[in-house]
Amino acid sequence: MSNKKSAILLIHCKDQPGIVVAITDFIFSHGGNIINLDQHVDTDQQRFFMRVEWELQNFSLPVENIGNEFDIAVATRFGMQRQLHFSSDRPRMAVFVSKLPHCFYDLLSRYEAGEWQVSIPLIISNHNDMSLVAERFNIDYFHVPIDKKNKLDQEKKQLELLEDYKIDFIVLARYMQILSEDFIDRFPQRIINIHHSFLPAFPGGRPYHSAFERGVKIIGATSHYVTADLDAGPIIEQDVVHVSHKDTVVDMVRKGRDLEKVVLARAIWHQLNHNLLVCENRTVVFD
Amino acid sequence: MSNKKSAILLIHCKDQPGIVVAITDFIFSHGGNIINLDQHVDTDQQRFFMRVEWELQNFSLPVENIGNEFDIAVATRFGMQRQLHFSSDRPRMAVFVSKLPHCFYDLLSRYEAGEWQVSIPLIISNHNDMSLVAERFNIDYFHVPIDKKNKLDQEKKQLELLEDYKIDFIVLARYMQILSEDFIDRFPQRIINIHHSFLPAFPGGRPYHSAFERGVKIIGATSHYVTADLDAGPIIEQDVVHVSHKDTVVDMVRKGRDLEKVVLARAIWHQLNHNLLVCENRTVVFD
Amino acid sequence: MSNKKSAILLIHCKDQPGIVVAITDFIFSHGGNIINLDQHVDTDQQRFFMRVEWELQNFSLPVENIGNEFDIAVATRFGMQRQLHFSSDRPRMAVFVSKLPHCFYDLLSRYEAGEWQVSIPLIISNHNDMSLVAERFNIDYFHVPIDKKNKLDQEKKQLELLEDYKIDFIVLARYMQILSEDFIDRFPQRIINIHHSFLPAFPGGRPYHSAFERGVKIIGATSHYVTADLDAGPIIEQDVVHVSHKDTVVDMVRKGRDLEKVVLARAIWHQLNHNLLVCENRTVVFD
Amino acid sequence: MSNKKSAILLIHCKDQPGIVVAITDFIFSHGGNIINLDQHVDTDQQRFFMRVEWELQNFSLPVENIGNEFDIAVATRFGMQRQLHFSSDRPRMAVFVSKLPHCFYDLLSRYEAGEWQVSIPLIISNHNDMSLVAERFNIDYFHVPIDKKNKLDQEKKQLELLEDYKIDFIVLARYMQILSEDFIDRFPQRIINIHHSFLPAFPGGRPYHSAFERGVKIIGATSHYVTADLDAGPIIEQDVVHVSHKDTVVDMVRKGRDLEKVVLARAIWHQLNHNLLVCENRTVVFD
Repeated sequence: MSNKKSAILLIHCKDQPGIVVAITDFIFSHGGNIINLDQHVDTDQQRFFMRVEWELQNFSLPVENIGNEFDIAVATRFGMQRQLHFSSDRPRMAVFVSKLPHCFYDLLSRYEAGEWQVSIPLIISNHNDMSLVAERFNIDYFHVPIDKKNKLDQEKKQLELLEDYKIDFIVLARYMQILSEDFIDRFPQRIINIHHSFLPAFPGGRPYHSAFERGVKIIGATSHYVTADLDAGPIIEQDVVHVSHKDTVVDMVRKGRDLEKVVLARAIWHQLNHNLLVCENRTVVFD
Repeated sequence: MSNKKSAILLIHCKDQPGIVVAITDFIFSHGGNIINLDQHVDTDQQRFFMRVEWELQNFSLPVENIGNEFDIAVATRFGMQRQLHFSSDRPRMAVFVSKLPHCFYDLLSRYEAGEWQVSIPLIISNHNDMSLVAERFNIDYFHVPIDKKNKLDQEKKQLELLEDYKIDFIVLARYMQILSEDFIDRFPQRIINIHHSFLPAFPGGRPYHSAFERGVKIIGATSHYVTADLDAGPIIEQDVVHVSHKDTVVDMVRKGRDLEKVVLARAIWHQLNHNLLVCENRTVVFD
Repeated sequence: MSNKKSAILLIHCKDQPGIVVAITDFIFSHGGNIINLDQHVDTDQQRFFMRVEWELQNFSLPVENIGNEFDIAVATRFGMQRQLHFSSDRPRMAVFVSKLPHCFYDLLSRYEAGEWQVSIPLIISNHNDMSLVAERFNIDYFHVPIDKKNKLDQEKKQLELLEDYKIDFIVLARYMQILSEDFIDRFPQRIINIHHSFLPAFPGGRPYHSAFERGVKIIGATSHYVTADLDAGPIIEQDVVHVSHKDTVVDMVRKGRDLEKVVLARAIWHQLNHNLLVCENRTVVFD
Repeated sequence: MSNKKSAILLIHCKDQPGIVVAITDFIFSHGGNIINLDQHVDTDQQRFFMRVEWELQNFSLPVENIGNEFDIAVATRFGMQRQLHFSSDRPRMAVFVSKLPHCFYDLLSRYEAGEWQVSIPLIISNHNDMSLVAERFNIDYFHVPIDKKNKLDQEKKQLELLEDYKIDFIVLARYMQILSEDFIDRFPQRIINIHHSFLPAFPGGRPYHSAFERGVKIIGATSHYVTADLDAGPIIEQDVVHVSHKDTVVDMVRKGRDLEKVVLARAIWHQLNHNLLVCENRTVVFD
């Protein structure tokens, strides 16, 4: 981390000779000082990934032109997909929640304590339970109840809210509804979910019950991008905790809560720091 | 652990009042000094589990009568299933191996270093690759090749060897053959396998390849008792290690090897210390 | 865990024959059904430890007499130190905090979410920073500023508050003042601190800076009972997280925060569940 | 990992603009295809670190000239300290051992199983206990007993052996002698030790005893480069395992053994893969 204003490029493309020198030459020749460069080649897929960050202090290009100039000088030639971010960005995040408070409280506490460079202007819930908590943190809360009949209409309402509040990405903090494919398509790689198992073990509902029945000695939590396949999107972060025969389902739920909080928070951290690229349903996490 | 000679009772039965006092009174009234007592009630199944260990120094019953006397005084009344072991026991263990050496070497090194109170008189393999290693450790090695046609005959040969060598339990140290149901029935809760994933994720073959494809951030290993359901027997021990997008399948195999060694060794440790009870496909591990 | 009302005995004494049978006979003969029994002998110290829990449903002694009757029948004979608790107890906990919000928020969130059977009527701080947070959670907050001159007077004021609010135990949620020996003596084994290193490495201030300078690959957090020796009291719980050369002190502080929260919360959980005994500066944690 | 022959440059120098582009341009302009590039700036020390690996297949410089040409074109200009390695190298490693066999066996098993690209031609011990094991693995074993009087003479003998066997680096596999400063100076950053605690906690002898007395809930192991300050050299790798009040010193020793094996093996892996740079007593581990 650096306190100075910097630019971050996230790039992937087919692996080919000369990529690194082209990118670093672009930065260097405009007076940028690279402070982080992380590069990865997936040799199976012959795919090149890079995250590079440089200080803007003496950079000769105006911020609003960097993207275009980079495309002309480098990206087009190599067929790159690229994202350009700035360390001064403050993305706008919406939180979806149902009734379980632990991840929700944890996010809002971090937000208020200033752990993250983010704005959280909007909370959406299919229940009213968390409205008082939202009020305490002075965040707008919308109760959008969902049932089988009204789902598409209510999702439309949600999408309008997301647009009104200029939301960049969504966090599902134990949100207990399955989003439609149409909804998900509107936020590709911009919806982060926390699932309470070490996927791919125990997808779907009641994973702690399934873990107990199977007699596992380890339980886990997984944060991932939401895709149309339930609990099968690209995994961002996972962690586990040991359990024993003494742990009932209730104990697993208790121990799992602490995992869920931290695994979701780490995923959001990576999202906010532009550490994440996705390719072929797997993430590259530049850590 | 105690250096003095001791007796170990492993018990399970329907939960009911007075069990603990009956057992401890039996031990105390015959002059035994309890050095470990671990008790667990599965409230879901209303099932009582106990491991109790006491010093035999001043115990008034001869060792060969303890089982009978306990059955008459306590076990029959409560409908208990019980095992009686002695700290002076040295069980006889057979190792089944194929071509991968890491778990095999690890077991034999521990054996020779005296880490375990066990005898390993017999090694069986469907290949000849490990015969020289066995020779170094002065353990009899039998090459019993298996194919689809000869499987039952060859298993018969294996069973004869196991009988000849008076084997108490079997360890599959990355043995790449699936045992028949008949074979397994001959060694209930006495065959320990190591599987190279955190079951129930990625059962069957090539779990590291599946883990890579799914893009998990954690890989694991699982030791379990072998049952007729492939990779679905009671789990004894699990552990995991973090991986990243940089880890190829080859890296996962390398990192996983170290996990497999230690997870299998811990299971054997528990087996040798009579720490394990099984009920409803779950283990109780008195640790 | 059981939903029925139960009693919990925590016992330690010199190891000697007949302890377990005496205790379990006391419980059984009065109609109690044991639901948990965990026993441990420290063979070095020849010391016996036990936690036993039984249902009170059909217990023939009135709750208020159990302690006395147990002392007469069992405890005095064996020279036991014993604590008696009831699952229906709701202890009163005070939180001391300075300026860092992460543990503080985490405790209050868990409290409000009903994770713990506890009352938190009182917050004391040497700063005013957290007063608004306390207000949100409707908990009385007292600003008791401390400097070198006024320390003893201010501790007197704190002790009066703790008495007025009938506080059972104190949690130091990153409270940045060292308590006097007199103060500590008033709450033996009833003050829980969180220290931001894996003690005994890096006691005192700025452990993350020291960890960075030493180039460790793991950082930790430790919850412990406060004693007169700074950061040297009995350890209740520890956990760690891996770091790398990429992690600056700021990154370690960030990663450490998540550890501190969970390690402190686990210690409080054990305190509330009467899982903890202390002997010779070490804890026995009946988990 | 790649199967093709590649070159690896390890570089550190004062951070300054244009380093990355200079290095990558050197590689690219001679027809090299970069397969790994990992770069790190220690912003505190204003120090630049890099590991870069490229395929030699179409590289226009002969292998024996790469170092010189790089120095002329790049290294001298930026005041770099650089190491050049090749994926086809097979370094020569000596093992020092005393009486404890677990790390020793583990190393030799990995060696024989072909896990590492290394030669182990030489074993030196201050005892004779492991000579039979060495014989089994067909490695020359020299018994060089050390006492207070003969230490310098015997170290001279050791140094002669190390020279005769053309040893590149030394692994102390629980070698129980302290090396003299003169000896250490001959192998800077080329002697790897395994210490049985999470340093800086419990340096020196008997760390498991100290851990038990302190009542820690976690024990660890640390692999590090040996420097003149005992147990204070740059840390390469650390890992931990949880313990409880039930674990005696004997149990800690048992659990610790498994840690020591894997933590030492990981350090050797990094050494062999040229992943390690040292600066100011801290390691950079390109993983």
